[in-house]
Amino acid sequence: VSARLIGLDWGSTHLRAYLYGAGGTVLEQRALPYGIRQLPAGGFAQAFQEAVAEWPDEPAIACGMVGSRNGWHEVPYLDTPADVANLAHALTPLATPDDRVLHLVPGLRDGARPDVMRGEETQIVGALAQHGDAAWSGSFLLPGTHSKWVRVAGGTVTGFATMMTGELYGLLRRHSILGAVADGAEAEDDAAFRRGVLAARDSGAAGGLTRLFAARALMLDGALAEASVPSYLSGLLIGDELRAALAAGWSAAAAEIRLIGDAGLCRRYAAAAALFGLHTAQAPAHTTALGLWRLAAAAGLTETHAPRVSAP
Amino acid sequence: VSARLIGLDWGSTHLRAYLYGAGGTVLEQRALPYGIRQLPAGGFAQAFQEAVAEWPDEPAIACGMVGSRNGWHEVPYLDTPADVANLAHALTPLATPDDRVLHLVPGLRDGARPDVMRGEETQIVGALAQHGDAAWSGSFLLPGTHSKWVRVAGGTVTGFATMMTGELYGLLRRHSILGAVADGAEAEDDAAFRRGVLAARDSGAAGGLTRLFAARALMLDGALAEASVPSYLSGLLIGDELRAALAAGWSAAAAEIRLIGDAGLCRRYAAAAALFGLHTAQAPAHTTALGLWRLAAAAGLTETHAPRVSAP
Repeated sequence: VSARLIGLDWGSTHLRAYLYGAGGTVLEQRALPYGIRQLPAGGFAQAFQEAVAEWPDEPAIACGMVGSRNGWHEVPYLDTPADVANLAHALTPLATPDDRVLHLVPGLRDGARPDVMRGEETQIVGALAQHGDAAWSGSFLLPGTHSKWVRVAGGTVTGFATMMTGELYGLLRRHSILGAVADGAEAEDDAAFRRGVLAARDSGAAGGLTRLFAARALMLDGALAEASVPSYLSGLLIGDELRAALAAGWSAAAAEIRLIGDAGLCRRYAAAAALFGLHTAQAPAHTTALGLWRLAAAAGLTETHAPRVSAP
Repeated sequence: VSARLIGLDWGSTHLRAYLYGAGGTVLEQRALPYGIRQLPAGGFAQAFQEAVAEWPDEPAIACGMVGSRNGWHEVPYLDTPADVANLAHALTPLATPDDRVLHLVPGLRDGARPDVMRGEETQIVGALAQHGDAAWSGSFLLPGTHSKWVRVAGGTVTGFATMMTGELYGLLRRHSILGAVADGAEAEDDAAFRRGVLAARDSGAAGGLTRLFAARALMLDGALAEASVPSYLSGLLIGDELRAALAAGWSAAAAEIRLIGDAGLCRRYAAAAALFGLHTAQAPAHTTALGLWRLAAAAGLTETHAPRVSAP
């Protein structure tokens, strides 16, 4: 099988490389510890060279923070509404020192809030492709450090919002008075998680963050085991993200939300969403790898000997 | 002037000692670096001895974390509703190694949420005394690491809620992606603060925390100077505290809120409250010193040779 494309998923803390054959089959993949914040000596060029070493000189495409202000080459955000064709059209070619061409995927910008994403747009393209309905309408949720709620209408991303749920959880867990659980004493407690979700759900317009200190008061009361505080906290924060997203109209109560991301985290979100009466479906894995192929195909990069985008 | 009482304001990170004369006049005061988390060799007893050294053997009273689980001696929380008489009745005497008696003020517990405070109850007692109307009704706000919203009816604390605004600000400022401002580059920017307050005020039921990431997007957009992000963040968090407190009914839109605490921080809260159409008044300083005297007087500790509470 001959290779057709190289794809890079290049974020702050990771670099994954894919070699594709015809039809987008992944022939080979590599994971390198070279996120843009932790590059080897030689920087981006060296990291790239290692990522594609000994792979044929096919067009390469990359998404994620590699195209940010602190990345290899800054690619301006593309404003919403935007679809696969808009993204493909906005790929920015970069000539590398080893004479390859790397096409950078732009991030998206929602000017109304404002809000930005880099990398998630490619996951969404991949998820839409997996869904097999390019004109799908609905809401995607990509939970994580910076959760993204994404509205799609007829296959076009019309707007999105970032919630810093994962980052807040990490900060509270590691550095706050609520996170002071003895090392190794933390227990994964589904009941405490559920309790946190319900506290957020029932907090009304005041919001679940007003219940943060309750985690401590419940512990002092003997009503919540110290080892279960992190689970309660996780439920409270995820629950409040769902509460706020519903209040802001990012999803209708009856609609299905498509989850994209780490399976374990998505299971937590699905459990929380069920307590709100929301339906969720988990997108299959490998959305980024598929999204990169899909964008490259839309840009004509996968047509042998007929690249539509040339080096600068 | 002969001394009548020793008062201690003993928290996690500070120890302040007051020597009172008749009528509650503060004759002398001391500040020691012995919060309950940073005691000298010899622990609580040594810290106490240094705090009261060479002062006459008058009754002593202490409020704050010294009465917590990690304090010198745990004093159970007193449930709301509670007034000065209830607090004075619940003072818990502790015989010290140097043969003094230290009366510990209990914290308060609002069982409905649940929520707890230690130390703030004494500030409230002091503020009520300063106000000169023991039967006052209204809302106190004690901004800080853990802001307290306190409802008072006829001089009785009927309920309260803690918001972790100050702690969240510190976490985001020191450890998050939003806090990454170059050292020394931070500017106090009133316009950015105001902008943050308004973003929170206008966030509706979704809540201002959903706008956290906007601080980054605005900065990337060039619409907010990097050096002004901390001011924006401060406005967003204080604004969201006010928004949430109003949504939860902790204050009516027309009512006056009495602020107790650090003058600079109270000024920020007053400026934010004005953008919500709220009226605020700053309580005079020294509420803790006055509150300790007031509680001791209510318990009969300041009547010479006639202590009502004896050592165990």
